[in-house]
Amino acid sequence: MEHFGWVCSRCSATFGLADIRYTCGCCPHGGRLTLALDYQRLGAGHAPGDTVLLDEPSMWRYRRLLPVTESLSTSWVALPVGWTPLYRADKLGKQLGLAELFIKNEALNPTGSLKDRASALVVAKAMELGERTVATASSGNAAAALAGLCAATGLRCLVFVPERTPASKLAQLAAYGATVVRVRGDYDTAVELSLAASAEWGWYCRNTAVNPYTAEGKKTAALEILEQLGWKSPDAVLVPVGDGNILVGLYRGFVDALAMGWINQLPRLIGVQSDAAAALYEAWHRGGTEVVPTRAATVADSISVGNPQDGYRALQAVRDTNGVLTTVPESEIVPTARWFTQQTGVLAEPASAVTVAALPRLLRERHIRRDERMVIVHTGHGLKTLDVVMAGSPRARVVEPTLDALRSFITDHHGGEPAFVPANG
Amino acid sequence: MEHFGWVCSRCSATFGLADIRYTCGCCPHGGRLTLALDYQRLGAGHAPGDTVLLDEPSMWRYRRLLPVTESLSTSWVALPVGWTPLYRADKLGKQLGLAELFIKNEALNPTGSLKDRASALVVAKAMELGERTVATASSGNAAAALAGLCAATGLRCLVFVPERTPASKLAQLAAYGATVVRVRGDYDTAVELSLAASAEWGWYCRNTAVNPYTAEGKKTAALEILEQLGWKSPDAVLVPVGDGNILVGLYRGFVDALAMGWINQLPRLIGVQSDAAAALYEAWHRGGTEVVPTRAATVADSISVGNPQDGYRALQAVRDTNGVLTTVPESEIVPTARWFTQQTGVLAEPASAVTVAALPRLLRERHIRRDERMVIVHTGHGLKTLDVVMAGSPRARVVEPTLDALRSFITDHHGGEPAFVPANG
Repeated sequence: MEHFGWVCSRCSATFGLADIRYTCGCCPHGGRLTLALDYQRLGAGHAPGDTVLLDEPSMWRYRRLLPVTESLSTSWVALPVGWTPLYRADKLGKQLGLAELFIKNEALNPTGSLKDRASALVVAKAMELGERTVATASSGNAAAALAGLCAATGLRCLVFVPERTPASKLAQLAAYGATVVRVRGDYDTAVELSLAASAEWGWYCRNTAVNPYTAEGKKTAALEILEQLGWKSPDAVLVPVGDGNILVGLYRGFVDALAMGWINQLPRLIGVQSDAAAALYEAWHRGGTEVVPTRAATVADSISVGNPQDGYRALQAVRDTNGVLTTVPESEIVPTARWFTQQTGVLAEPASAVTVAALPRLLRERHIRRDERMVIVHTGHGLKTLDVVMAGSPRARVVEPTLDALRSFITDHHGGEPAFVPANG
Repeated sequence: MEHFGWVCSRCSATFGLADIRYTCGCCPHGGRLTLALDYQRLGAGHAPGDTVLLDEPSMWRYRRLLPVTESLSTSWVALPVGWTPLYRADKLGKQLGLAELFIKNEALNPTGSLKDRASALVVAKAMELGERTVATASSGNAAAALAGLCAATGLRCLVFVPERTPASKLAQLAAYGATVVRVRGDYDTAVELSLAASAEWGWYCRNTAVNPYTAEGKKTAALEILEQLGWKSPDAVLVPVGDGNILVGLYRGFVDALAMGWINQLPRLIGVQSDAAAALYEAWHRGGTEVVPTRAATVADSISVGNPQDGYRALQAVRDTNGVLTTVPESEIVPTARWFTQQTGVLAEPASAVTVAALPRLLRERHIRRDERMVIVHTGHGLKTLDVVMAGSPRARVVEPTLDALRSFITDHHGGEPAFVPANG
């Protein structure tokens, strides 16, 4: 643990690992803390397998780049997180005219989203610290991740979700046994209440970005992407953006890999928001470093954030990698989620579709080139939001079990064109 | 491909790989075909890594034990299937008083179930054969698996599902773009119609057990279990049973490993049914080899099968491994699914809970011992059946965003006991 400390992303103040719990007091919102690593002592300049990389099929293969106590193994084997598939989606790439488009499918984490990585590290730390109760505010996925990890380890869990959280996400939280606090108001209101309550009653607070371990847990996704590409950095990595914490987490992983000498350059980080929840994009567009809260009302609940919790660092990350922030029209999100699913067999939640929806604009504005190697991070499982993505679709009608009935059904179904039934059938 | 052929499980007739499409004509229902492998030519007696095992993070690491053309790589990279986590669930094991209880989490396949393995192999063969349309009957998961794999590869897909398929499973099928034929009647009726229609219009039929590649695809789960345990066979493997095809598939994998000399003995295969859909259990109990169709009406839709499609081979597999078939009371399934989820953080679909529900009875009847190494195969993602598992749960009520309102809510929520709020809080 002597290889690690914290540094404030705002004022550069440094702290010992155990000397601070959440944020630096240097600014009204609390300067977000970034892990400082002693890369030399961690073996910089040597191959990953010779230094920190472990042979474990989970995010904990990188635990030597995380400030956790080695002996505390129960929490990370209780519900293995990470080491999700990365693969080239050739059919999708061809449809979009892109030569090398990869999907990192984070929906295949145990509770169905990339947020499992943050929750897994927070829960490991909570156990190390002897905490018994962990709380978080979340638009849904982070809450599920915390609830699942707490179920697996036996910690008590309170989750604060916005009033309008999809019913299926609420049901998932209840299934894990978490205490679900459905807060009158939006995500930002849930954040405020969870912070106040954690302070009042001494719960360990997992809130995205406020708890510095969240971004550090997410960095393992970046390290996996690089390892899965044979330690060759892709040209660009595209992610949906709400709080900005995933952008920051990925950036942290790429920076670690660069500092360890495993890659030669950082990939460009491309963040995508809905134009109905575009606080970070607007700050980027203005060219500043400060984010002004806006109204957030996108169908993509996972990125429906008006007051991004990790805006300052996210803007830094995009700038430092020569990346870009962009938006997609709200009206394109659900149709793109459907189209993406039909091209890939990967059921997309609305938030996960914004990166795909942004590709034409990114090409048009020359932020990406057709021959580049790109990774889209598929952040959350579409099974959680089927009701949203398939809203308005007619329920399949019942067909009588005869060939004649079937023939009529298929003919109707394909608009009079009996696509599957030979003409003489 | 010269290492492979087919043998009828009923009459032992042999066939060349390309000489037969579905089943042997030796019995009224069609003798199910089992792959015959030339283990000597595949390198029996040598380590897996020296013979057939490939360094790929999917089921295709075992493709040299599958009769597929090596050059046809597009189908298996289009949507990687398999290589799912296996890990020791210590909290669950402790609750149940079992020393070494492992979970093989097949819900983390891309469409959320073990059925992806069968569909992936069938789709690979369909592409090899130049087929354009694939059809299947399914209680839900196999249909989703086929629909997802077809979306990823561009094949046309028709799925025949029972009238009472859960709405969320229907929505998943529609999302992948499959043509969903919701058949008036149960799974067995859907099977009949799909067979008749495939014969009539020449579609490639994926039906479980009828298409011999289904069990062969599923065998990769067994090979992964063994590899993940360091090529040491567990004492027993527990699976939910509907058609019996998963039992058969796992058996096929364990037999391959034994024949290749990678393990010394087969694990006992333990199949679990609901007492409301117990055709295979009843045949086992009678001691015969023939299955008599029964009524099937379990809430565990994935195993609600009255006329098992792979009964004969399933009974053989259980017998040959000194295993057992058992049942659990229908009324215990949903409560166990909830309890399992809260102990593990793994969201169980009802069918996946029957193995856990059976453990007390299996212990009592001395089919398992507390000190044995056991693997439960978690077959399907609980996100697909949240409406079933959480039916009757109250929807989380909305809490006003104040500490006072929160305090009252928590006190109410925990039955008057303010568990999370210190007494002086």
